[in-house]
Amino acid sequence: MELITKTKLTFLKNAWYVAALTTELDTETLLTRKIIDETVLFYRKEDGSVAALRDRCPHRFAPLSKGIRSGDEITCLYHGLKFNELGECTHNPHGNGKIPKACAVKSYEIEERDGFIWIWMGNRSKADRSKIMDCSVLSQKPDTAVGHIYMYNKCNYQLLTDNIMDLSHIDHLHGPLINTGGKLSPLLPNVQEEGEVISVRWDWLAEPAMQLFAVHLPRPEDEANQYFQVDWHAPSNMHLKVAAVQDSTDYTNDGLELYDFHIMTPETEFSTHYFFASARNYLEEDGEYNAAKMAGMEQAFIEEDKPMIEAQQQEMGESGFWELQPVLLSSDAGGIRVRRKLSELLEIESA
Amino acid sequence: MELITKTKLTFLKNAWYVAALTTELDTETLLTRKIIDETVLFYRKEDGSVAALRDRCPHRFAPLSKGIRSGDEITCLYHGLKFNELGECTHNPHGNGKIPKACAVKSYEIEERDGFIWIWMGNRSKADRSKIMDCSVLSQKPDTAVGHIYMYNKCNYQLLTDNIMDLSHIDHLHGPLINTGGKLSPLLPNVQEEGEVISVRWDWLAEPAMQLFAVHLPRPEDEANQYFQVDWHAPSNMHLKVAAVQDSTDYTNDGLELYDFHIMTPETEFSTHYFFASARNYLEEDGEYNAAKMAGMEQAFIEEDKPMIEAQQQEMGESGFWELQPVLLSSDAGGIRVRRKLSELLEIESA
Amino acid sequence: MELITKTKLTFLKNAWYVAALTTELDTETLLTRKIIDETVLFYRKEDGSVAALRDRCPHRFAPLSKGIRSGDEITCLYHGLKFNELGECTHNPHGNGKIPKACAVKSYEIEERDGFIWIWMGNRSKADRSKIMDCSVLSQKPDTAVGHIYMYNKCNYQLLTDNIMDLSHIDHLHGPLINTGGKLSPLLPNVQEEGEVISVRWDWLAEPAMQLFAVHLPRPEDEANQYFQVDWHAPSNMHLKVAAVQDSTDYTNDGLELYDFHIMTPETEFSTHYFFASARNYLEEDGEYNAAKMAGMEQAFIEEDKPMIEAQQQEMGESGFWELQPVLLSSDAGGIRVRRKLSELLEIESA
Ligand code: FES
Ligand code: FES
Ligand code: FES
Repeated sequence: MELITKTKLTFLKNAWYVAALTTELDTETLLTRKIIDETVLFYRKEDGSVAALRDRCPHRFAPLSKGIRSGDEITCLYHGLKFNELGECTHNPHGNGKIPKACAVKSYEIEERDGFIWIWMGNRSKADRSKIMDCSVLSQKPDTAVGHIYMYNKCNYQLLTDNIMDLSHIDHLHGPLINTGGKLSPLLPNVQEEGEVISVRWDWLAEPAMQLFAVHLPRPEDEANQYFQVDWHAPSNMHLKVAAVQDSTDYTNDGLELYDFHIMTPETEFSTHYFFASARNYLEEDGEYNAAKMAGMEQAFIEEDKPMIEAQQQEMGESGFWELQPVLLSSDAGGIRVRRKLSELLEIESA
Repeated sequence: MELITKTKLTFLKNAWYVAALTTELDTETLLTRKIIDETVLFYRKEDGSVAALRDRCPHRFAPLSKGIRSGDEITCLYHGLKFNELGECTHNPHGNGKIPKACAVKSYEIEERDGFIWIWMGNRSKADRSKIMDCSVLSQKPDTAVGHIYMYNKCNYQLLTDNIMDLSHIDHLHGPLINTGGKLSPLLPNVQEEGEVISVRWDWLAEPAMQLFAVHLPRPEDEANQYFQVDWHAPSNMHLKVAAVQDSTDYTNDGLELYDFHIMTPETEFSTHYFFASARNYLEEDGEYNAAKMAGMEQAFIEEDKPMIEAQQQEMGESGFWELQPVLLSSDAGGIRVRRKLSELLEIESA
Repeated sequence: MELITKTKLTFLKNAWYVAALTTELDTETLLTRKIIDETVLFYRKEDGSVAALRDRCPHRFAPLSKGIRSGDEITCLYHGLKFNELGECTHNPHGNGKIPKACAVKSYEIEERDGFIWIWMGNRSKADRSKIMDCSVLSQKPDTAVGHIYMYNKCNYQLLTDNIMDLSHIDHLHGPLINTGGKLSPLLPNVQEEGEVISVRWDWLAEPAMQLFAVHLPRPEDEANQYFQVDWHAPSNMHLKVAAVQDSTDYTNDGLELYDFHIMTPETEFSTHYFFASARNYLEEDGEYNAAKMAGMEQAFIEEDKPMIEAQQQEMGESGFWELQPVLLSSDAGGIRVRRKLSELLEIESA
């Protein structure tokens, strides 16, 4: 006989997570979504801002998302307790109507920006909006140069973080549109830590550039300077810049630059909400190109990354990452730095 | 690392449960049903009475329900051991045919009454038929005034008990047919304990009466006296009386009265067999009304109660009820009294 | 609260298992199959022989079966590590290309014979091909007298072993084609242990012979000598001979003889790969009869054995066999001897 043991669940609570896309929440919807193992109800108030409440009535644990909305208040459908957007109970139809002190639900700090609805899962008093990853480029570019996608994955969120922190996988896993032709793997990625941001960067000479860029460069067949830079923000939010330029090193002014955001929000230990958004500095007014580019990115993820990462999870089962003794390669530098940092932050938080 | 712990399973064994409806068992059927985590085989003997055996052959644990019936005996299909309705082995085709002492299956005390097949899951010597909840009204009324329904639910049986013990939910959860228009919630339900029965009762003045009754009262639009009374019998068997009367307080003789039975039989910790039956004292000969009324009750349960209670279970996960620290309201008085009583009985039984 | 405990997984590692049929592996296929809880990749090398590698890249645990084959090497699709058929890493595209010492996957000893691909799951140095069960009759007979089948079962492999070691079940479970008419159960099966092989044998006089044989005997309606003999080889590989003869005791020369192989390979504790093959000494050139006979065997198994054994597993749940205190019958002699032997071997191996 052996005891079953289980690695402790490890989510940062004092952290900003993307809970939903702006487009997922119209004025009617009661959206329920599980974030780091807590079900949360999201709805848009009459002033257009977003409210978020624990999706669990304190009386008998019915989901408030099954309830009825009136103004900015939600009435639990099971026995009629009513809650406002702060989670305070405003009406108890039972007995003398007195509201028990404990009769309240947790409400969450929310910030909506740049097409994302961010949620702070921990202590509200510690919520610091200045810590939200800067995605403002998504608002600065015209709609025809911006897109947002939501995807669902059956894996631990750290496998998805690893995927972005080690972009050498593009050499091997991806089809021609974004393939890097084996150029990334030989490079030692440049890993930097500044404040709480960990960056990893690859610079290389491509000949020709990635197909995605090549056709929009002056000389499609010729060599181009390229780079990837990923900036990781805890717990699993990443800004990825991808660029190509010819006859210059000023990517932003002379070249083609993509501003991608890969944001992973754990649902449970083995499932993850994946939010992807992208803007660019070229063909900014071309809505048709924009749609095709977003569709191409989604397809690449769904057909190439997702099956690989879910298979990886399947093979790992419920074992921990270090427990399986992974062999580390030079391209792992960024991902491993992030895993170590996250472990530190988790230890600090649980201390 | 943390150890996974699990709340102990808690079913009363020395108790009467409804295992099936009379109509589920014809003379051919070998019905298998899991009751408080034990699979049981039910069949109707040649004399019409019901036999119940543990549905697990003592040899290699094949289900006897896959076996072959001859007279009142069942032959295991795997290696041919034969058992009578007492669970005694009557034939061993192997070797010299001697029957090993331990070669027997548990048989159960059964009582069939009023359209229900009751089973005693514990020690047979303790089975006392006088403890079976009185449902005789189901036999006293004509067939055109009686109906029985079986429903299956993915939740702990105590959530279904709570649902009936706190009928204030009708104010909030249910559609017009049985809605009580917010009249119940403000009342303090009258909770009584007499012997081993816990009763909860609501009396109110409705204007008009519940739609179900109103159209059959002398003055459909006018006010009526109404009451609900639930009598709970351990472990999870409830008799609910619902009535309306105008210009009188004699519900039974002057008014409309429903005699409902809500009987919950745990299958496993998180799944429950729900048996519902109903009779009435009005339109007793109207079979068409009867069918429509039963269909309406079933629909209300399937569309309104069941999704809510299963969602509640989903949200509670495998956590215990008290562990989640429910906020209690005045309407919980009956349900909580029942939960406490059941805990006491479980402690006594396991002592 | 109670701790969940779990019986230890018990598979022999230093043992030969059938992993696949020869026909399952053409020259292109990357076949993945889980054997005793390990995922293994199988492919046919350019020389036609079979390679087997742990189907888990040592870098990030991606399945190599999702990789790309070139010659006899496999490149992991996720980050491009390349492995040869010995599991050695032959190319690391990352950084300076140095191959970390630990960068290798387990490879397995393989032997392909008589339509089966055998795998040795333990220490390669202990792999002794002379220990592989002799199935050579499958190669000695013409194709028209031989067949192979693969079946998948949701049960522990030992339940399938029990099924073959106690053929008295044929008296009770099976339809007319292979029914033994109650003749086996009264016999005390003759159990022998010789070296590491445990044999169980039934000899009886059938009147008439099993339907399968009767029509091919000189006098179909008359009595015939018959026997069943099963030779068990650890861990769960069985050779079953079935025969009938009239006016002689020389089954092989004067009678009809079937040479069946029942080989169980655990996938997990509760799922099993079942390989069945059969040859015979009569109608050897009749391909049509061969196809019908194989189809009949498969149908008997799928419709009769499989549902019973899976139901047995369902009823046993995760409990251990002895823990459930089975009642033993005389026909269990062979199966119990095998269970005891297997326990001994498991103890020796884990010592
Ligand atoms: S569960 Fe919400 S009011 Fe009862
Ligand atoms: S399992 Fe019933 S006789 Fe063997
Ligand atoms: S997982 Fe195979 S090379 Fe990375």
